[in-house]
Amino acid sequence: MNERQPARRPGGRSARVAAEVHQAVTDLISERGYGNFTVGEVAARAGVADSSIYRRWGSLERLLTDVALTRLNAQSPMPDTGSLAGDLRTYAANVAREITGPDGLAVVRLAVALSNNGPQGLQAGDDLRADRMRQLQSMLDRARERGEHAPDAFGVLDHILAPMYIRVLFGMVPLTPEYIDGLVDRLL
Amino acid sequence: MNERQPARRPGGRSARVAAEVHQAVTDLISERGYGNFTVGEVAARAGVADSSIYRRWGSLERLLTDVALTRLNAQSPMPDTGSLAGDLRTYAANVAREITGPDGLAVVRLAVALSNNGPQGLQAGDDLRADRMRQLQSMLDRARERGEHAPDAFGVLDHILAPMYIRVLFGMVPLTPEYIDGLVDRLL
Repeated sequence: MNERQPARRPGGRSARVAAEVHQAVTDLISERGYGNFTVGEVAARAGVADSSIYRRWGSLERLLTDVALTRLNAQSPMPDTGSLAGDLRTYAANVAREITGPDGLAVVRLAVALSNNGPQGLQAGDDLRADRMRQLQSMLDRARERGEHAPDAFGVLDHILAPMYIRVLFGMVPLTPEYIDGLVDRLL
Repeated sequence: MNERQPARRPGGRSARVAAEVHQAVTDLISERGYGNFTVGEVAARAGVADSSIYRRWGSLERLLTDVALTRLNAQSPMPDTGSLAGDLRTYAANVAREITGPDGLAVVRLAVALSNNGPQGLQAGDDLRADRMRQLQSMLDRARERGEHAPDAFGVLDHILAPMYIRVLFGMVPLTPEYIDGLVDRLL
Protein backbone atom coordinates (compact mmCIF):
# COMPACT_ATOMS: atom_id res chain seq x y z
CA MET A 1 0.00 0.00 0.00
CA ASN A 2 1.31 3.41 -0.93
CA GLU A 3 1.49 5.36 2.30
CA ARG A 4 1.79 8.61 0.40
CA GLN A 5 -1.66 8.16 -1.01
CA PRO A 6 -3.60 11.15 0.34
CA ALA A 7 -5.82 10.18 3.25
CA ARG A 8 -9.49 10.97 2.93
CA ARG A 9 -9.81 14.18 4.89
CA PRO A 10 -12.49 14.38 7.57
CA GLY A 11 -12.42 18.19 7.22
CA GLY A 12 -14.18 20.40 4.69
CA ARG A 13 -17.52 22.10 4.75
CA SER A 14 -19.47 19.20 6.16
CA ALA A 15 -17.16 18.80 9.16
CA ARG A 16 -17.18 22.56 9.71
CA VAL A 17 -20.98 22.64 9.77
CA ALA A 18 -21.06 19.71 12.20
CA ALA A 19 -18.58 21.45 14.51
CA GLU A 20 -20.57 24.68 14.45
CA VAL A 21 -23.87 22.93 15.09
CA HIS A 22 -22.33 20.93 17.95
CA GLN A 23 -20.94 24.09 19.50
CA ALA A 24 -24.29 25.86 19.16
CA VAL A 25 -26.00 22.98 20.96
CA THR A 26 -23.42 22.96 23.75
CA ASP A 27 -23.76 26.74 24.20
CA LEU A 28 -27.54 26.58 24.30
CA ILE A 29 -27.48 23.79 26.88
CA SER A 30 -25.11 25.84 29.05
CA GLU A 31 -27.21 28.97 28.77
CA ARG A 32 -30.73 27.60 28.97
CA GLY A 33 -30.56 24.02 30.09
CA TYR A 34 -31.67 20.95 28.24
CA GLY A 35 -35.09 21.08 26.60
CA ASN A 36 -35.30 24.86 26.39
CA PHE A 37 -34.40 25.42 22.75
CA THR A 38 -35.50 24.39 19.27
CA VAL A 39 -33.84 23.18 16.07
CA GLY A 40 -34.52 26.67 14.65
CA GLU A 41 -32.53 28.29 17.45
CA VAL A 42 -29.64 25.88 17.00
CA ALA A 43 -29.65 26.59 13.27
CA ALA A 44 -29.72 30.37 13.77
CA ARG A 45 -26.81 30.27 16.19
CA ALA A 46 -24.76 27.97 13.97
CA GLY A 47 -25.54 30.06 10.90
CA VAL A 48 -27.07 27.19 8.93
CA ALA A 49 -30.56 26.45 7.60
CA ASP A 50 -33.02 24.42 9.68
CA SER A 51 -33.26 22.03 6.75
CA SER A 52 -29.53 21.25 6.95
CA ILE A 53 -29.99 20.06 10.51
CA TYR A 54 -33.07 17.97 9.74
CA ARG A 55 -31.37 16.45 6.67
CA ARG A 56 -28.29 15.43 8.58
CA TRP A 57 -29.64 14.49 12.02
CA GLY A 58 -33.37 13.94 11.46
CA SER A 59 -34.50 15.38 14.83
CA LEU A 60 -33.36 17.46 17.77
CA GLU A 61 -33.11 14.31 19.92
CA ARG A 62 -30.75 12.67 17.47
CA LEU A 63 -28.65 15.79 17.21
CA LEU A 64 -28.43 16.02 21.00
CA THR A 65 -27.41 12.37 21.20
CA ASP A 66 -24.71 12.91 18.59
CA VAL A 67 -23.35 15.89 20.56
CA ALA A 68 -23.31 14.02 23.86
CA LEU A 69 -21.76 10.91 22.33
CA THR A 70 -19.06 12.86 20.53
CA ARG A 71 -18.12 14.88 23.59
CA LEU A 72 -18.35 12.10 26.18
CA ASN A 73 -16.10 10.06 23.93
CA ALA A 74 -13.57 12.83 24.15
CA GLN A 75 -13.77 13.71 20.45
CA SER A 76 -10.91 11.35 19.80
CA PRO A 77 -10.67 7.77 18.57
CA MET A 78 -10.36 4.98 21.11
CA PRO A 79 -6.67 4.59 21.96
CA ASP A 80 -4.63 1.61 20.75
CA THR A 81 -1.38 1.73 22.72
CA GLY A 82 -0.56 -1.97 22.66
CA SER A 83 -1.54 -2.70 26.26
CA LEU A 84 -4.87 -2.64 28.02
CA ALA A 85 -3.51 -0.57 30.91
CA GLY A 86 -2.19 1.97 28.42
CA ASP A 87 -5.44 2.02 26.47
CA LEU A 88 -7.61 2.45 29.54
CA ARG A 89 -5.40 5.11 31.10
CA THR A 90 -5.35 7.11 27.87
CA TYR A 91 -9.08 6.68 27.33
CA ALA A 92 -9.92 7.65 30.92
CA ALA A 93 -7.65 10.70 30.75
CA ASN A 94 -9.30 11.81 27.49
CA VAL A 95 -12.77 11.43 28.96
CA ALA A 96 -11.69 13.27 32.13
CA ARG A 97 -10.26 16.14 30.08
CA GLU A 98 -13.47 16.42 28.12
CA ILE A 99 -15.90 16.29 31.03
CA THR A 100 -13.90 18.70 33.20
CA GLY A 101 -13.42 21.14 30.29
CA PRO A 102 -15.44 24.31 29.83
CA ASP A 103 -18.44 22.51 28.29
CA GLY A 104 -18.02 19.25 30.12
CA LEU A 105 -20.67 19.68 32.75
CA ALA A 106 -23.27 20.68 30.17
CA VAL A 107 -22.49 17.55 28.20
CA VAL A 108 -22.68 15.18 31.16
CA ARG A 109 -25.97 16.76 32.17
CA LEU A 110 -27.22 16.36 28.62
CA ALA A 111 -26.41 12.65 28.71
CA VAL A 112 -28.31 12.43 31.98
CA ALA A 113 -31.24 14.41 30.59
CA LEU A 114 -31.45 12.24 27.46
CA SER A 115 -32.14 9.20 29.59
CA ASN A 116 -35.07 10.91 31.25
CA ASN A 117 -37.07 12.47 28.52
CA GLY A 118 -39.78 10.01 27.64
CA PRO A 119 -39.52 7.24 25.05
CA GLN A 120 -37.55 9.27 22.51
CA GLY A 121 -35.06 10.37 25.14
CA LEU A 122 -34.75 6.81 26.37
CA GLN A 123 -34.11 5.58 22.84
CA ALA A 124 -31.46 8.26 22.34
CA GLY A 125 -29.91 7.29 25.66
CA ASP A 126 -29.89 3.65 24.61
CA ASP A 127 -28.21 4.50 21.32
CA LEU A 128 -25.62 6.53 23.19
CA ARG A 129 -24.86 3.69 25.56
CA ALA A 130 -24.86 1.03 22.86
CA ASP A 131 -22.41 2.98 20.71
CA ARG A 132 -20.17 3.71 23.66
CA MET A 133 -20.23 0.10 24.79
CA ARG A 134 -19.38 -1.17 21.30
CA GLN A 135 -16.32 1.07 21.11
CA LEU A 136 -15.17 0.01 24.55
CA GLN A 137 -15.83 -3.61 23.74
CA SER A 138 -13.59 -3.54 20.68
CA MET A 139 -10.75 -2.13 22.82
CA LEU A 140 -11.28 -4.89 25.39
CA ASP A 141 -11.49 -7.53 22.63
CA ARG A 142 -8.12 -6.45 21.27
CA ALA A 143 -6.63 -6.91 24.74
CA ARG A 144 -8.09 -10.42 25.00
CA GLU A 145 -6.69 -11.29 21.58
CA ARG A 146 -3.26 -10.28 22.88
CA GLY A 147 -3.79 -12.69 25.78
CA GLU A 148 -4.45 -10.02 28.40
CA HIS A 149 -7.08 -10.48 31.08
CA ALA A 150 -9.72 -7.83 30.42
CA PRO A 151 -12.79 -6.72 32.38
CA ASP A 152 -16.07 -6.34 30.49
CA ALA A 153 -17.38 -3.01 29.22
CA PHE A 154 -19.80 -2.73 32.13
CA GLY A 155 -16.85 -2.93 34.53
CA VAL A 156 -15.32 0.06 32.76
CA LEU A 157 -18.64 1.90 32.99
CA ASP A 158 -19.13 1.13 36.69
CA HIS A 159 -15.59 1.59 37.99
CA ILE A 160 -13.90 4.11 35.68
CA LEU A 161 -16.58 6.18 33.96
CA ALA A 162 -19.25 6.30 36.69
CA PRO A 163 -16.89 7.61 39.42
CA MET A 164 -15.59 10.31 37.06
CA TYR A 165 -19.08 11.33 35.93
CA ILE A 166 -20.40 11.47 39.48
CA ARG A 167 -17.44 13.49 40.73
CA VAL A 168 -17.96 16.00 37.92
CA LEU A 169 -21.72 16.13 38.52
CA PHE A 170 -21.13 16.67 42.25
CA GLY A 171 -18.46 19.30 41.63
CA MET A 172 -15.68 17.16 43.14
CA VAL A 173 -12.99 18.28 40.74
CA PRO A 174 -10.27 18.30 39.52
CA LEU A 175 -9.78 14.68 38.52
CA THR A 176 -6.04 14.27 39.00
CA PRO A 177 -3.92 11.91 36.87
CA GLU A 178 -3.22 9.91 40.06
CA TYR A 179 -6.92 9.55 40.71
CA ILE A 180 -7.66 8.48 37.11
CA ASP A 181 -4.79 6.00 36.93
CA GLY A 182 -5.88 4.66 40.32
CA LEU A 183 -9.33 3.86 38.94
CA VAL A 184 -7.77 1.97 36.02
CA ASP A 185 -5.28 0.09 38.18
CA ARG A 186 -7.97 -0.89 40.63
CA LEU A 187 -10.19 -2.28 37.87
CA LEU A 188 -7.32 -4.23 36.31
CA MET B 1 -31.19 1.63 82.09
CA ASN B 2 -34.89 0.92 82.08
CA GLU B 3 -35.69 -0.35 78.62
CA ARG B 4 -39.38 0.21 79.21
CA GLN B 5 -38.82 3.93 79.52
CA PRO B 6 -40.83 5.43 76.66
CA ALA B 7 -38.61 6.32 73.72
CA ARG B 8 -38.80 9.87 72.48
CA ARG B 9 -41.10 9.60 69.50
CA PRO B 10 -39.87 11.06 66.23
CA GLY B 11 -43.52 11.31 65.11
CA GLY B 12 -46.07 13.98 65.90
CA ARG B 13 -46.97 17.17 64.13
CA SER B 14 -43.44 18.27 63.39
CA ALA B 15 -42.52 15.00 61.66
CA ARG B 16 -45.81 15.04 59.75
CA VAL B 17 -45.13 18.56 58.49
CA ALA B 18 -41.60 17.57 57.47
CA ALA B 19 -42.89 14.52 55.57
CA GLU B 20 -45.53 16.57 53.76
CA VAL B 21 -43.07 19.30 52.83
CA HIS B 22 -40.55 16.71 51.58
CA GLN B 23 -43.23 15.03 49.47
CA ALA B 24 -44.35 18.39 48.05
CA VAL B 25 -40.77 19.15 47.02
CA THR B 26 -40.31 15.73 45.41
CA ASP B 27 -43.60 16.10 43.49
CA LEU B 28 -42.70 19.58 42.27
CA ILE B 29 -39.28 18.41 41.09
CA SER B 30 -40.90 15.55 39.18
CA GLU B 31 -43.50 17.81 37.58
CA ARG B 32 -41.49 20.91 36.81
CA GLY B 33 -37.85 20.13 37.25
CA TYR B 34 -35.41 21.63 39.66
CA GLY B 35 -35.43 25.43 39.96
CA ASN B 36 -38.95 25.94 38.65
CA PHE B 37 -40.84 26.44 41.89
CA THR B 38 -40.85 28.66 44.97
CA VAL B 39 -41.11 28.23 48.74
CA GLY B 40 -44.66 29.58 48.45
CA GLU B 41 -45.61 26.81 46.03
CA VAL B 42 -44.07 24.13 48.24
CA ALA B 43 -45.97 25.54 51.22
CA ALA B 44 -49.28 25.66 49.33
CA ARG B 45 -48.93 22.06 48.17
CA ALA B 46 -47.93 20.82 51.62
CA GLY B 47 -50.73 22.79 53.28
CA VAL B 48 -48.45 24.76 55.59
CA ALA B 49 -47.56 28.44 55.93
CA ASP B 50 -44.51 29.84 54.10
CA SER B 51 -43.24 31.00 57.48
CA SER B 52 -43.16 27.40 58.77
CA ILE B 53 -40.78 26.47 55.98
CA TYR B 54 -38.53 29.48 56.47
CA ARG B 55 -38.47 28.95 60.24
CA ARG B 56 -37.48 25.32 59.92
CA TRP B 57 -35.22 25.28 56.85
CA GLY B 58 -34.19 28.91 56.38
CA SER B 59 -34.17 28.83 52.57
CA LEU B 60 -35.33 26.83 49.56
CA GLU B 61 -31.75 25.63 48.96
CA ARG B 62 -31.48 24.24 52.46
CA LEU B 63 -34.87 22.56 52.16
CA LEU B 64 -33.86 20.97 48.84
CA THR B 65 -30.62 19.74 50.38
CA ASP B 66 -32.49 18.23 53.29
CA VAL B 67 -34.85 16.42 50.91
CA ALA B 68 -32.02 15.07 48.75
CA LEU B 69 -29.93 14.01 51.74
CA THR B 70 -32.83 12.29 53.44
CA ARG B 71 -33.86 10.41 50.32
CA LEU B 72 -30.41 9.51 49.02
CA ASN B 73 -29.66 8.15 52.45
CA ALA B 74 -32.62 5.88 52.04
CA GLN B 75 -34.61 7.47 54.88
CA SER B 76 -33.19 4.93 57.25
CA PRO B 77 -30.34 4.97 59.75
CA MET B 78 -26.96 3.58 58.68
CA PRO B 79 -27.01 -0.18 59.28
CA ASP B 80 -25.03 -1.76 62.11
CA THR B 81 -25.09 -5.51 61.40
CA GLY B 82 -21.84 -6.44 63.11
CA SER B 83 -19.79 -6.90 59.92
CA LEU B 84 -18.64 -4.46 57.27
CA ALA B 85 -19.87 -6.68 54.43
CA GLY B 86 -23.29 -6.85 56.08
CA ASP B 87 -23.38 -3.11 56.71
CA LEU B 88 -22.37 -2.21 53.15
CA ARG B 89 -24.74 -4.70 51.54
CA THR B 90 -27.66 -3.43 53.62
CA TYR B 91 -26.74 0.20 53.05
CA ALA B 92 -26.31 -0.29 49.28
CA ALA B 93 -29.60 -2.18 49.04
CA ASN B 94 -31.40 0.63 50.92
CA VAL B 95 -29.92 3.28 48.64
CA ALA B 96 -30.80 1.21 45.56
CA ARG B 97 -34.39 0.80 46.74
CA GLU B 98 -34.70 4.53 47.31
CA ILE B 99 -33.16 5.68 44.02
CA THR B 100 -35.07 3.16 41.91
CA GLY B 101 -38.36 3.94 43.66
CA PRO B 102 -41.06 6.19 42.18
CA ASP B 103 -39.36 9.44 43.25
CA GLY B 104 -35.82 8.17 43.04
CA LEU B 105 -34.84 9.68 39.74
CA ALA B 106 -36.13 13.10 40.76
CA VAL B 107 -34.04 12.93 43.90
CA VAL B 108 -30.83 11.87 42.16
CA ARG B 109 -31.35 14.64 39.63
CA LEU B 110 -31.90 17.09 42.49
CA ALA B 111 -28.60 16.09 44.05
CA VAL B 112 -26.96 16.64 40.67
CA ALA B 113 -28.68 19.99 40.20
CA LEU B 114 -27.67 21.20 43.67
CA SER B 115 -24.03 20.85 42.73
CA ASN B 116 -24.49 23.06 39.70
CA ASN B 117 -26.42 26.03 40.85
CA GLY B 118 -23.89 28.71 41.66
CA PRO B 119 -22.25 29.27 45.04
CA GLN B 120 -25.36 28.51 47.11
CA GLY B 121 -25.98 25.30 45.21
CA LEU B 122 -22.34 24.32 45.58
CA GLN B 123 -22.48 24.99 49.31
CA ALA B 124 -25.63 22.89 49.60
CA GLY B 125 -23.94 20.17 47.59
CA ASP B 126 -20.90 20.33 49.84
CA ASP B 127 -23.10 20.05 52.94
CA LEU B 128 -24.85 17.08 51.39
CA ARG B 129 -21.60 15.31 50.62
CA ALA B 130 -20.01 16.17 53.97
CA ASP B 131 -22.98 14.81 55.90
CA ARG B 132 -23.11 11.67 53.79
CA MET B 133 -19.39 11.12 54.12
CA ARG B 134 -19.53 11.55 57.91
CA GLN B 135 -22.22 8.90 58.21
CA LEU B 136 -20.34 6.50 55.98
CA GLN B 137 -17.13 7.21 57.82
CA SER B 138 -18.60 6.28 61.17
CA MET B 139 -19.74 2.94 59.71
CA LEU B 140 -16.24 2.32 58.34
CA ASP B 141 -14.65 3.40 61.64
CA ARG B 142 -16.73 0.83 63.51
CA ALA B 143 -15.42 -1.86 61.15
CA ARG B 144 -11.82 -0.79 61.75
CA GLU B 145 -12.40 -0.84 65.51
CA ARG B 146 -13.54 -4.45 65.11
CA GLY B 147 -10.26 -5.17 63.32
CA GLU B 148 -11.75 -5.39 59.83
CA HIS B 149 -9.97 -3.96 56.83
CA ALA B 150 -12.15 -1.13 55.54
CA PRO B 151 -11.98 1.07 52.43
CA ASP B 152 -12.34 4.82 52.85
CA ALA B 153 -15.60 6.67 52.29
CA PHE B 154 -14.47 7.86 48.86
CA GLY B 155 -14.05 4.23 47.82
CA VAL B 156 -17.67 3.63 48.75
CA LEU B 157 -18.70 6.71 46.77
CA ASP B 158 -16.68 5.75 43.69
CA HIS B 159 -17.35 2.03 43.54
CA ILE B 160 -20.74 1.45 45.17
CA LEU B 161 -22.73 4.68 45.02
CA ALA B 162 -21.45 6.14 41.72
CA PRO B 163 -22.21 3.02 39.64
CA MET B 164 -25.72 2.82 41.11
CA TYR B 165 -26.40 6.54 40.58
CA ILE B 166 -25.12 6.45 37.00
CA ARG B 167 -27.12 3.35 36.13
CA VAL B 168 -30.27 5.02 37.48
CA LEU B 169 -29.50 8.28 35.68
CA PHE B 170 -28.90 6.39 32.43
CA GLY B 171 -32.03 4.29 32.88
CA MET B 172 -30.07 1.04 33.26
CA VAL B 173 -32.39 -0.50 35.80
CA PRO B 174 -33.32 -2.57 37.75
CA LEU B 175 -30.37 -2.86 40.12
CA THR B 176 -30.52 -6.53 41.06
CA PRO B 177 -29.44 -7.84 44.47
CA GLU B 178 -26.66 -9.78 42.69
CA TYR B 179 -25.42 -6.61 41.05
CA ILE B 180 -25.47 -4.64 44.32
CA ASP B 181 -23.77 -7.37 46.35
CA GLY B 182 -21.20 -7.69 43.55
CA LEU B 183 -20.28 -4.02 43.91
CA VAL B 184 -19.78 -4.49 47.65
CA ASP B 185 -17.78 -7.70 47.30
CA ARG B 186 -15.56 -6.19 44.66
CA LEU B 187 -14.78 -3.17 46.85
CA LEU B 188 -14.01 -5.33 49.88
